[in-house]
Amino acid sequence: MFQGADILRDVRRKKPLIHHLTNYVTMNDCAAVTANTGALPVMAEAEEEVEEMVASAGAAVINTGTLTPSRARAARAMGRKAREKGIPVILDPVGAGSTAYRTREIEGILAETRPAVIKGNAAEIGLLAGVEGAVISGIQSLGFAGDPLEAARGLRNHLDYDAVIAVTGPEDVITDGKRAARVFNGHSLLPLVVGSGCMSASVIACFAAVEEDRFLAAAAALAYLGLAAERAAEALQGTAFGPLLFKARLIDELFLITPESFAAGAKVEITAL
Amino acid sequence: MFQGADILRDVRRKKPLIHHLTNYVTMNDCAAVTANTGALPVMAEAEEEVEEMVASAGAAVINTGTLTPSRARAARAMGRKAREKGIPVILDPVGAGSTAYRTREIEGILAETRPAVIKGNAAEIGLLAGVEGAVISGIQSLGFAGDPLEAARGLRNHLDYDAVIAVTGPEDVITDGKRAARVFNGHSLLPLVVGSGCMSASVIACFAAVEEDRFLAAAAALAYLGLAAERAAEALQGTAFGPLLFKARLIDELFLITPESFAAGAKVEITAL
Amino acid sequence: MFQGADILRDVRRKKPLIHHLTNYVTMNDCAAVTANTGALPVMAEAEEEVEEMVASAGAAVINTGTLTPSRARAARAMGRKAREKGIPVILDPVGAGSTAYRTREIEGILAETRPAVIKGNAAEIGLLAGVEGAVISGIQSLGFAGDPLEAARGLRNHLDYDAVIAVTGPEDVITDGKRAARVFNGHSLLPLVVGSGCMSASVIACFAAVEEDRFLAAAAALAYLGLAAERAAEALQGTAFGPLLFKARLIDELFLITPESFAAGAKVEITAL
Repeated sequence: MFQGADILRDVRRKKPLIHHLTNYVTMNDCAAVTANTGALPVMAEAEEEVEEMVASAGAAVINTGTLTPSRARAARAMGRKAREKGIPVILDPVGAGSTAYRTREIEGILAETRPAVIKGNAAEIGLLAGVEGAVISGIQSLGFAGDPLEAARGLRNHLDYDAVIAVTGPEDVITDGKRAARVFNGHSLLPLVVGSGCMSASVIACFAAVEEDRFLAAAAALAYLGLAAERAAEALQGTAFGPLLFKARLIDELFLITPESFAAGAKVEITAL
Repeated sequence: MFQGADILRDVRRKKPLIHHLTNYVTMNDCAAVTANTGALPVMAEAEEEVEEMVASAGAAVINTGTLTPSRARAARAMGRKAREKGIPVILDPVGAGSTAYRTREIEGILAETRPAVIKGNAAEIGLLAGVEGAVISGIQSLGFAGDPLEAARGLRNHLDYDAVIAVTGPEDVITDGKRAARVFNGHSLLPLVVGSGCMSASVIACFAAVEEDRFLAAAAALAYLGLAAERAAEALQGTAFGPLLFKARLIDELFLITPESFAAGAKVEITAL
Repeated sequence: MFQGADILRDVRRKKPLIHHLTNYVTMNDCAAVTANTGALPVMAEAEEEVEEMVASAGAAVINTGTLTPSRARAARAMGRKAREKGIPVILDPVGAGSTAYRTREIEGILAETRPAVIKGNAAEIGLLAGVEGAVISGIQSLGFAGDPLEAARGLRNHLDYDAVIAVTGPEDVITDGKRAARVFNGHSLLPLVVGSGCMSASVIACFAAVEEDRFLAAAAALAYLGLAAERAAEALQGTAFGPLLFKARLIDELFLITPESFAAGAKVEITAL
């Protein structure tokens, strides 16, 4: 049986603090997503306080959109402290492969902070794994010829420690090297929503803050977000809407989903590798 | 009789400029709140221009979310200029007590800029007053054992100048040392709205820009925001919604509230101390 | 015949990358506008990567809201690279005239990057042209006594290169010195929407990325945004709404407008000068 409902129940009971070092574009959305899931968002970014702030967090997100040198330094300091304290870090390597600077900084953050979960689209994960066939334009994946699970395994082999890799897409694919999960929840409008990728990292962080098995936490989180997308589309059916109204509805569906409706709606398949 | 309706009428007639030095998470919401109330928002943050910008403002907000050293310097410079010009500053000490850096910077800003109004939740005000029983997680008040009015009076005694203290909560409490106001407008969903605290500082600034009695301005502003929350909940009744759709509706209710409907709906009780 | 529909069709087919160096207040809106128009937004701001990022863009936006020295340097570097590569830059001189710092930086950016299109409200364009009668409060135009077309021509004469000048207002006016366009699409609520000016620069950039005739691109873009505003008002008719719900609806109307409905609804008049 899939334990997603229990994880969601735990988030709402424990209300973990989720520290974000994230981009300025989708910050407000990520804070709303975290709060609606049931956790407490904080977005401190000064090098002078990120270590102290993350020390009381249940999990942390590092998102490399709108990166600058001072924010990259803060991300590394925050990530090192989290690692030292055993607090899971979720890395969202936004823009990996788009510029030399971004790619270099992401590799530095990755090596120093050893995130518990690395979450990206197939192009980002493929580029970090050094796999062929990944195309990126700015921060947008323009397609990836290969198999997402192979890209995820490629990135794992590339690392010198154990991490969960989550690849978002029409079907989300998650692996910890021993197991693979496929998440079938979602909606075709989701990739058109600015910030949907960032939002998924926030949800994974909420779940990872209360569930030691990060593989399960990541799979459950992506199912929860995908289910919210399905429910949003249903709620808006018969009305004219685009990605922005869909996003607002989706974020509120996160709030409206109960552990029971999550258990009933999650579509996750887990296999041993 | 409560003068709130006259203050709101004045805001819309005079359209004061409200300079914000605020966090990146809720900036867009604060700008919308300011504009919908009837004033003009500006969010300049460069040390090179904040003094010139604030000099033409009717009021200013300093919010310490996502604080950095350069923004703290700009906040102090802006606040000193405002003080020199007699322009009221509203301080929203977001995250006071959460890290040593944040607390120290907030105390520095407080001492140098002598804000006309200090607005926070009970935990923030309690922590600044040095009162026992305040618990904060990141930027979220997790409860305060004591009486909010006592916390407010404690903070006033702590200061070496006269300020209005506003404590938001299920009932908002405002005091200038001689009078106490209790605001009964509001809605249980408001604390779940990311940025509702920041938004209340913007509304207080709009009102303080046109009303010399900052105590009345703060009480009226919180009643206005609380009334918008009540109206939003009413407008959404019978539909499924969460904090994000509620926030959007609430911000637009600020625009839709007329001085007349404000006069009819405000629930404020003022007593002499 | 007006070619707007063809331009929109091209945006959706080619999906150009639109690099923004823009303010923190309306960044999320600008990203949503760009995505809903059919292009790919990116908001990189580090000096270390903006040149590489803009080199693969179809067009770029420089918006001077919340300007700081490091962002001004990044804007100049990005704009120079774009100019060198023949990539059109849209300059949105937010706050021109409001502070000495802002005005000086805008003039520097203008001289170094030679934007293909300069878009502002009448006060901003009038102030940059050195025309009398422009009044600004913070970043808000408080009126301009003169004729917008004269202000636009004044600014063109002020420049030592060819640019398209777009002046937004109740009627938008665009000129390249040889032709003038008037756009009659729009809605009276648009000026009350925080970020509507910023959003128009993003749409112009999307259109200029695929249409060599920047004058036509700018005129078509403003008609497209104005049509979305008309459709939003129509969709919301009979409901109580304010500027924020109107904005959300408007952004989604950009997504819903087809080349066909754009052709049917655009109200643009072009005359030779």
